[in-house]
This record gives sequence, C-alpha cells and structure tokens, in this order.
Amino acid sequence: MKAAVLMGPDRIELKEVQTPIPGPADVLIRVEACAVCSSDLSLMAKPWPGQPSYGEFIPGHEYAGTVVALGETVDEFRVGDRVAVEAHLGCMRCRNCRLGNYTACLNYGKKGHRANGFTTNGGYAQYVINHVNTVYPIPDSVRFDEASLITNLGCVLYGFETAGGYIVGDQVVVIGPGPLGLISVEVAKALCAQRVFLVGTRASRLEVGRNLGADRIIDIHQENAVQVILEETKGMGADLVIETSGSAEGPQMAIAMARRMGKILLLGFPEEPVNADFSLLGKNNKHLYTVRGEGWTNCGRGVSLLASGKVNLKRLVTHSFALGDISDAFRTFRERLGGAIKVVVEPQKV
Amino acid sequence: MKAAVLMGPDRIELKEVQTPIPGPADVLIRVEACAVCSSDLSLMAKPWPGQPSYGEFIPGHEYAGTVVALGETVDEFRVGDRVAVEAHLGCMRCRNCRLGNYTACLNYGKKGHRANGFTTNGGYAQYVINHVNTVYPIPDSVRFDEASLITNLGCVLYGFETAGGYIVGDQVVVIGPGPLGLISVEVAKALCAQRVFLVGTRASRLEVGRNLGADRIIDIHQENAVQVILEETKGMGADLVIETSGSAEGPQMAIAMARRMGKILLLGFPEEPVNADFSLLGKNNKHLYTVRGEGWTNCGRGVSLLASGKVNLKRLVTHSFALGDISDAFRTFRERLGGAIKVVVEPQKV
Amino acid sequence: MKAAVLMGPDRIELKEVQTPIPGPADVLIRVEACAVCSSDLSLMAKPWPGQPSYGEFIPGHEYAGTVVALGETVDEFRVGDRVAVEAHLGCMRCRNCRLGNYTACLNYGKKGHRANGFTTNGGYAQYVINHVNTVYPIPDSVRFDEASLITNLGCVLYGFETAGGYIVGDQVVVIGPGPLGLISVEVAKALCAQRVFLVGTRASRLEVGRNLGADRIIDIHQENAVQVILEETKGMGADLVIETSGSAEGPQMAIAMARRMGKILLLGFPEEPVNADFSLLGKNNKHLYTVRGEGWTNCGRGVSLLASGKVNLKRLVTHSFALGDISDAFRTFRERLGGAIKVVVEPQKV
Amino acid sequence: MKAAVLMGPDRIELKEVQTPIPGPADVLIRVEACAVCSSDLSLMAKPWPGQPSYGEFIPGHEYAGTVVALGETVDEFRVGDRVAVEAHLGCMRCRNCRLGNYTACLNYGKKGHRANGFTTNGGYAQYVINHVNTVYPIPDSVRFDEASLITNLGCVLYGFETAGGYIVGDQVVVIGPGPLGLISVEVAKALCAQRVFLVGTRASRLEVGRNLGADRIIDIHQENAVQVILEETKGMGADLVIETSGSAEGPQMAIAMARRMGKILLLGFPEEPVNADFSLLGKNNKHLYTVRGEGWTNCGRGVSLLASGKVNLKRLVTHSFALGDISDAFRTFRERLGGAIKVVVEPQKV
Repeated sequence: MKAAVLMGPDRIELKEVQTPIPGPADVLIRVEACAVCSSDLSLMAKPWPGQPSYGEFIPGHEYAGTVVALGETVDEFRVGDRVAVEAHLGCMRCRNCRLGNYTACLNYGKKGHRANGFTTNGGYAQYVINHVNTVYPIPDSVRFDEASLITNLGCVLYGFETAGGYIVGDQVVVIGPGPLGLISVEVAKALCAQRVFLVGTRASRLEVGRNLGADRIIDIHQENAVQVILEETKGMGADLVIETSGSAEGPQMAIAMARRMGKILLLGFPEEPVNADFSLLGKNNKHLYTVRGEGWTNCGRGVSLLASGKVNLKRLVTHSFALGDISDAFRTFRERLGGAIKVVVEPQKV
Repeated sequence: MKAAVLMGPDRIELKEVQTPIPGPADVLIRVEACAVCSSDLSLMAKPWPGQPSYGEFIPGHEYAGTVVALGETVDEFRVGDRVAVEAHLGCMRCRNCRLGNYTACLNYGKKGHRANGFTTNGGYAQYVINHVNTVYPIPDSVRFDEASLITNLGCVLYGFETAGGYIVGDQVVVIGPGPLGLISVEVAKALCAQRVFLVGTRASRLEVGRNLGADRIIDIHQENAVQVILEETKGMGADLVIETSGSAEGPQMAIAMARRMGKILLLGFPEEPVNADFSLLGKNNKHLYTVRGEGWTNCGRGVSLLASGKVNLKRLVTHSFALGDISDAFRTFRERLGGAIKVVVEPQKV
Repeated sequence: MKAAVLMGPDRIELKEVQTPIPGPADVLIRVEACAVCSSDLSLMAKPWPGQPSYGEFIPGHEYAGTVVALGETVDEFRVGDRVAVEAHLGCMRCRNCRLGNYTACLNYGKKGHRANGFTTNGGYAQYVINHVNTVYPIPDSVRFDEASLITNLGCVLYGFETAGGYIVGDQVVVIGPGPLGLISVEVAKALCAQRVFLVGTRASRLEVGRNLGADRIIDIHQENAVQVILEETKGMGADLVIETSGSAEGPQMAIAMARRMGKILLLGFPEEPVNADFSLLGKNNKHLYTVRGEGWTNCGRGVSLLASGKVNLKRLVTHSFALGDISDAFRTFRERLGGAIKVVVEPQKV
Repeated sequence: MKAAVLMGPDRIELKEVQTPIPGPADVLIRVEACAVCSSDLSLMAKPWPGQPSYGEFIPGHEYAGTVVALGETVDEFRVGDRVAVEAHLGCMRCRNCRLGNYTACLNYGKKGHRANGFTTNGGYAQYVINHVNTVYPIPDSVRFDEASLITNLGCVLYGFETAGGYIVGDQVVVIGPGPLGLISVEVAKALCAQRVFLVGTRASRLEVGRNLGADRIIDIHQENAVQVILEETKGMGADLVIETSGSAEGPQMAIAMARRMGKILLLGFPEEPVNADFSLLGKNNKHLYTVRGEGWTNCGRGVSLLASGKVNLKRLVTHSFALGDISDAFRTFRERLGGAIKVVVEPQKV
C-alpha cells in the first residue's frame, strides 16, 4: 500500500509499504480521510515520546474509512462497515485504564497501549489497523471527511462530561476560535447552554463561530473580554469557561471569567509556565478541569451527535488533498491558506 | 457585656457593649473560646470587603460556647446546649445558596448573608448571636477550645468532600504544616488514606505532623519534595495533593506531585499571581479543586469526627488567653511564640 | 380579587377574597395562566398533609403571570416582569435545604417552608404571592400558558440532572405518555439522546409523543415492550429508563428494560406497594433514582430551554378556561375530554 | 497438582490435575487459603451461566496465596509476592469495561472475560492462574486466610463508593449480620459514620456485629426496626441503609428506614420478586444503588484498609479445613456449625 512515512525531521515521503495485518481484536481499515492536527506538525518537527523511528513511522490520528478485514475474535464489526476512530487504546491493565480512564493510560507506548499516529502507525496511509476499542460505526449520512474530525468532537465532549455534562440554561464562554473552540461552541449550543460567548483575536474565525451558533463574539483587540463577560452576566461571571487557545493569557483569562463556584475547562494550554492568580480561583471556589484526548467513549457519543445533525463538522473541513499532496496539506493547515480550518488528506487518492 | 472592638487599623480594645438580641431564627451564645485565625490579623490590619466600621466591629469567627437564649422560631436547640459554630450564613436566595453552596453566597454582606467575625460581629465577646444554620451541638466530651477549631476541620472536610471524599488506600500529599495542613493530615488518615506525606520547611511543625499521623515528612530544605513523592509512588505521583501553604511555590509543587488523572486541592494560595505549568496539568489530566470556607454542613460532620476521637484538635491548641489579654493572643499567634499553633481567647475570663 | 377557594371535598367555588400582600422577600404576581395537575384533583378529593382549611385554601401550583408588587428587599425583579414559578420554597434551615435539596425540605409546611397550592395559597386566583426563590423571568417570546407548565419541565429536568444529566448518544426509554412522559421525550431529544422509545397504551397519546420526537413508539397492547427494547439495543437494554406512568407494572418494566449498569428514573410510581425483581436490579448493577418536585433551580433552566425553542410545551396545552369555568377545566382534564393533555385556567378571565 | 473438581451436582472431588500455565499477562499463584462463599453452594447445586462442564471445573473465587510464576509481559509482580485476588476480569472491550465497570462486563464468559471460580477455574486447588488485573500484593502483616476475604471487603467498599463514599458523621443502618453485613459495619465505622445500626434476627451474630463496632443492634424479633431507626434519628431516617440480608423483607425495610433524600445500597437481594412501596421511595426522593462484585479496584483499597488494622477480617474466619476436607468445609459453612461465619480451605494441606 501507499503511505506517508516520516523519514526525518519535517520530512514525510510517500512510500510503498507492507499492508498491515490485524491482530485478534483488530480491524483493518481502508482510510478514506485523515485530518491534519497541529500535533502532527509538532511531532514531525521533533519526535514525541514513544514515537517509532524515522523510516518506519506513519503519522495521522484523525481518520475514517471502511473496514476491510477482521481479526479472529472480532464480531463487533463486519467487512464493509463505515467507521470513525479514536487515537487511544489503553493498556487496559494499569490503574487508570482499569477505572475507565484509558486516555490517561500509565503505560504509554507499552504493554499493549497504542496511540495510533503517535506510538503506532496512523492514517496517512491507504490502510491502517485499529483495535476494536477504537472504532465506531458511522451511518451513511455521515461523510468520511467530517467523520475524520470525530476525535476533535470526542475530545470536546469528554471535556463537557468531565465538567459535569449538564449545562441547560448555563452561560458558557469559549476562548479561542480554533477547531476545538469552534466545536466547543457547537456542543455548548447542542447541550442547551443559554448563551455561548466566543473570545478570540481573528475576526474571520469569530465570524465562523457566530455562524456555528455563538451568541456573542468578543474580539479581544476590540473589547476587554473579562469585562464583557462580567457585564453580560450581571457581574456574576460565566458558569463554564472553556479555554482552547493555548495562549499564555488563556488560563488567567479563564479564571477571571468564571463565576464564584464556576468551572474552568482547559482544552488548550501554553507549553511554558505562565502567571495565574490562584487567589482568585481559591477565594471564589472555582474548579479547574482538564482532559487528555477523547476519553470515556465520547467518540461514539460524537458519532451520534454528528448523525443527528445537531453538530456540523463539515463546515470546518475547508480543504482536502490527495495523499501524494500531503505536504501541501500540511502547509495549507500550518499557514491557514485560504482560511483553512481543518485540512483533510484522502489516502485513496494518490 | 465585654467585647474586643476594632477601633482602627490593628487597634482592638476591650469595651463594654450592649449584649445582642437574637432574631427569630437565631440563638444567643455565651462564648467560651474563640480561636485566632490568620484572617483576623489580615482584617485588623486592613478592612476586608463588607466589614463593619471601626468602633462597631467585633472580630472572631472560630468560637464555641453555650446557648443562653433562643429566637422565637428556634426549636433546634435548647438553652444550655454546648455548641460550635461556622462562620457563614448564606443569603439563602442567590443561585449558589439555593444549590447548597452557601459559603460561596453571591450576596456577600447583603440580603441576610452574614459572615460572623467578617461582616457581622464575631466571637471575641462574651456573647454573640448566630443563626441556627451556623450552630452545631457538641457532646460533653468535646472541650470548648478544641470545638472552637471546628471551622478549620469543617474547611478541611469540605475540601475532601469537594475532591470526591473517598480516598481509601490512596496516596495523599499535604503541603504546609500550618493548622489546615496538620488537620488535613489527620483527616486523610481518618478517611483511610494509605500513606500521607507532609511537606514543609520547619522541622518542629513537621514533627507535630508526624505525631498526628503523617507517614512520611519531607523537609524541602533537605529533600526535593517532588522527587521524593515520585520515588515513593513508583513514578506515578500522588492521588491527591492538598496545598495549604499559600506559598508562591505551592501551586506548581502541587501540580508536579499529582499523578496522571490525580487531584489537587487548594486550601491555601498565594495572594499574588504566580507561575504554574498548565501544560503539566493539561497533558496529564489533573484536576484542581478549591473550597471557600467550611461548606456543605461539614462543621457538623467535623463535630462527629471530633467526638469519635479519630481527629484530635486539642494538640493544636497550644495557648490560651483571657479576653483582656487578646493582644497577647494575637502576638503569640503571629510570632509563633512558644511554638504556637492555634491560640485561643477565653471571653468569660476578663 | 377573585379566587377559586376549596370549600370542602371536591367543592371549589369562585369567591371574592383579599388580595395578598407580599412579605419582604416576596413578589405579588397577577396570574395569567394556571395549569391543572393531577395532584390538584387528588388534594381536592382528600386533603394532603399541611393543607390549609376548607374555606381558606386556594389550590393551583403551576402558574405564570406578571409581577405587580415587590417586597421591600426585592431587587431581583421589577414590576412588569413576566414570570413563571416553581411550587416549593424550602425552609432553608433544615439539612436538606442547606445542601440545596429544597424540594425535599424536612420542615414541610413549617418554619417558612411553603408549597404554593399545597400548604399555602396558589394560582387559581387573580393574584398570588411568591418568594423570590420560586420566581423566574420569562422572555416575551414565551406565552403564559406554556410558561405555566414550567414546573413539569423543571421536574423532568431535575430528573435528568439527578440521573447524571449527560446522555449524548444514549438509548432512552420513557414509559407513560402523560404530560411528564411527553416532556421527558422532548428533553431526552433536546439533550441529544440517540434514540428515544415511548411506551404506552393509548395510540393517540403515543402519536403525540412521536410528533414530539420519540423515535419509536411501543403500544404495550400490541407489542412486548421489554422484548422490543432488548431487540432494539442488541440485547443490552436501555441506558436510561424513565418511568412516568405510575402504573403497578411500571417499576418492574423499567427494571427489566435498563441495561447492565443502566439507570432507572422514577417520575411516577404506584401509590400501593407492588412486586419488583430486586435480583434483576442487583445482579445487573442498575441504579434507581427518584425526584421530588422541580429542584436544583431546574425551573430556571427550563425557561431557557423553552425560550430556545428546543422544547415545545404549547402543543401540550390543549384547552383553556376562564377562572369562572374552573370546574369545567377539572372535568376536561380528568376525563381527557377532547384529547385533553394539559388544561389551563386563566384567572384574569372571569 | 491437587484440586477440588466439580464432578456433578453437589459432587466435588479431590483430583490430580495438570498445573495451569500462565498466559502472557497472568501470574501463577500457589493458593494458601480459599474461602467458602454462598455462591459456591449455589453453583455446585445447579450450574451458573458460563460455568465449565462437570469434570473440568474447579470452583472457589475468594483466595490468596503466593506468586510462583509470571507471564512473559508481567513486571507488576515478582515470584514470591504474597497476593490477594478479585474474581472478575472484564473483557476490557465492551462498553462497560471500557468505562471502568469491569465487574458488569457485557461479555460475561466470552472474549477474554474471566470470573475465576465461576467461568474459569478457581482457588480450590493448589495452583491457579490470575490475570494481573485481578491480583493485589499484600504485606506480610496480613494473613492469607483474612486476605482470602478481600473480595468481600472489596464488594462492600465498592458499594460505599457507589453510594458516594463520603459518610463522615452520617447515620448508617446495616440490615443482615452475614459476612457482607458485618464487614459493612466495620467499613462504615472506618469511614467515620457517626452511628451504625445493625439489624438482624440472630442474637449471636448481632453480638459479633457489636464487637466489630455497631453502635446499636436491633433484633427484629424483639423490636420494630423501622420504628427504632426513626426514633433514633429524630424521625428523619438514616442517611444510608445497606441491605445485605437478601430476605424478602429487606428491600422494603431499607426503603422505609432511609431518610428523605437518603440512600439505599443493595448488597443482597431476594431471588424472587417481592413487594416494595415505590411511592415511599419516590415521594421522599430516596435513591437505590446496587453493586455487582468488587469493582473499581476496591480490592486494592481493601488490602490497604486491612493492612492499616482499621478493618479486621480475622475475626470472621471461624474455621479452616485442609483441601481434602472440603466437603466438611462446605457443610460447616452451610449449616453454620460451631457459629461458623467464614470458612477457609487451605489447599496446601491435603
């Protein structure tokens, strides 16, 4: 089969490689769409922990396709099933996995743990193997390109579930209009938040957010976002603030916007330590939640949400490329060419 | 009656004042012991929001005594009941109060909200009034001086409940061997944590912690606390880290010590913004909880714990003073004279 | 003012009575719509505990109207505000109230507790007083008659929140197509359940449920409901079963339909003890939740949901009557004349 | 090795069989103690679902011993480790297992699921294999016979965790003074319940409960247990009622004893449907929880509790027998000869 193999730092090349063979509890998937994620760019530039060697590693963890072969114990799927996937298979024997927290597996890269596209081969290939735990059937009404974004939706849903999951009538702020932020806006509306505020710096992206359901957009170049939130909530602050920007200002802004006894959910975070006012957090009894990946089978919940039409991921897929043009795909995503939001690679097109 | 009235910044004087009259849902308490808290020192130096005027305000929020009169609707207590108190009475009509989060009342100092010793008169007086919601009976076996520390125990218990409340067999770290830290050690052991680590800088206080049940003490002048915790937990980190030191290093140390999917509980926090590595928090799926005061009726739970003998607060009461010597009480506490941990004022001794 | 006063068993009469005067934390509401509930029929036939004497008591607990006067401490509302209400005001001093569970107040009918239309006067009158805790503003887009059903919606939402509140992609069964059942169907869909099954005996009501969003209706005169649910869920059972029928078979049917580790929510229940298979519950690790009233401020959440258009209560209001025709309203509701679902009384029409 | 093999209904015989070989993630355990459970009696009388054929099946699921061999991927244990076990290994690929609820595995007896002593061979043998997920190290201070009861303790702890896990200062009732009931008394005290009531019919067993910490015993032949509980809780009812008797009256008694908004935990249940008053449950907002087995790694928590000395299981081990005398062990347990509570078989003694 054809696959995009990482040959060295930022050097990915189309190669002819062996089609993988599914293990007893695996399926073989013909990949129809694999979406570019910013972590792809990061791990191609500099290897992540547990990453396979140059010359052997196929990245790509956001993909969808069709089941073409089954491991010997698999009766959960049939050949021909259209499917989406999640990245993380836990070792299923560490304490976290045993308690259901498989994306926080304590045996990362060991003892059966797999993170496809990170520690095992991923979806920038014509075929890929997935353990049944990481595969979800999708109905015919869901396109492969939108289905390839299911890990994004699963991650956002995991965040909402972690923060309690019940937000009917609540005031929700989303900081950062990237893919996770825009999906957070959609999910907050789908789960019946009363008002959703979207905070960012780029007018065009904020506008996308408005079209996806944000009730109020706040351009921090134009307005003081904390002040706006306080005014719009009669001085109380928001019930839930979701930080997705990963900017240095993000955590503190989120802390300042949440109401007394409110919740903060970190879906993004700055790589370096930053300043934050823990006294504001402590005195006002705010709690701060995080998520790692797309846990608690929320990718499955996400497929249902997608199929219902209550969340729309198609609008986020702005570009697609054949597998042979994968470098163009990365450049388009990285430089946001043509207003790129999510960029999809189609491995069956070479 | 005699009371210690705040006359100006750091100027507290013994005065003869009117004995207060309980409202319909209040009781009048003869105060037998009122413990000094660091917030007393802070608000005497510089008024807190909602604090009554100089010349009118009696501080003191950690007290215990005997019921001597009842408001007209009170049948929950009888004259002669020995009682402990909590500081916060919520307005009981804001959103937080209605949902049970009365210490996070959104009408602080208004609409019936009271924080005795903060926004209404407190316990450095021979008599004080308390709404029935803030009063808990204590058995004869519990002394007044230890009962005056019940808000401390209630706050710690509220923290444990907020962080899930079930820690059987868990590894718990407590940072900071002040009163809240020492009580956290005791509560962690009482709730059947497997091992409790106490981190601090002062050998004598750490030694007190060891006597109260800490399995391992870590003097950060001698050892790298984060490294010790990682070693002692086979590299995993602690299930629960309770930061009580309020130091600038506290939050980051707590974040670094918690295991993947672990919990951090802030009972103390630095007043000024400090640096913290949110990427460590986010990538490892750690959650951070805070508490405000002694909520969810945990002072009542604390009385039960105290009466059972599973937690000992008597050992924390190192000094006591007559009401007339209140300035000595404050100085002893502030300067930790004679190894002072908690210092109690006895208003019936003038 | 004119009011419908209960003069004896099943004897309600239109009387001229004193317009009530709001207390310090109350508002006076001009009632525009008050919906008939089956509990009205029950308490008119035979007094409920805490019910005021014949000749003094105005029933009706599901109402909406306009604020016309404010108690002295009220700044949460203004004269002219359009509002919906909830029935329960807790005493706010018992253990349950203090912890936020005010509908389960331990001082029912005492110490400030009010259940309007049960222990204090209700909405079958031109004016009624409500404590601010029990009042929610409604936008102009929401009609008074649909707003009068907000306690129903609040009760259903309270049930969902009690059972976890997060059902994205779940399989939900609703037993009983009465008002609570039909609203449960709507809420389950609004909260993004994957499929909602509605079980009942009356084809016309089931058809209403289908129009409100039920994906599959099951007429137990035609099909074995338990078997259908097992087949439709590949033998697993439903994630959440909501029993609203109050029939003798309801609890056991709900137990049999829930999956291993599934949840059962009782919104209705038979008055008399009935048989149930606790071994099925225990061996399969199913949990059973109940609710009392419309707690945790879910009436406020319900107003938001109503205003968003995601839930429609207008379709449930099948009939309305002037206050003078209240007996016709009760008969229409009781006998389900003309396919009556919810019947509303309009007190401003005499 | 020697093992007790089930040859037919109630026909267990000592046989020489092949010593099993551990799979890649298994350990081989030399069994030092295996406790008799009432489910052993049940499945020997009539096979349970998934049970291996007569002539092949070795029962026994409550055991402890020493690790003597390791599967190729095992680094969690070392040869010589003293260990206790839990019965359930989930398939780790069904929905329940993936979410951490492995004792409620949806693939019972299939796809890698094992329930040792139920669907795979158990501990009435000199050696047994266990997947690492089901093994917990025990310190030298814990004897093998008490460690063989760890599934009982794990089940009780799982119940407490399911019901919230935080009971400091609460009133707890335990119905049924069998092994699970007696351990529930111990755990309730260890977790700092204020008072624990033990309800039963046999004076001698109630007396054992008193010695294990019950504050008040209630012999239902002497007293009306519901009435006693209401009186002792000032009419409110208990915060938590744990039904372990499995009697026909158990569920209804538990429902009647729980306070408004209280919790009921079913650890035992009658095999046949029984009458229960769901209106009492519903009107008073009581919730009913169940557990299946010893989930959420509570056997590990139990080992810690045992090692701390806060719970004592030694006092429950009243008798022990050599493997060759296993029939005597069963009879002693079944007929409660000599006041038998838990009876242990020692397979190394033949």
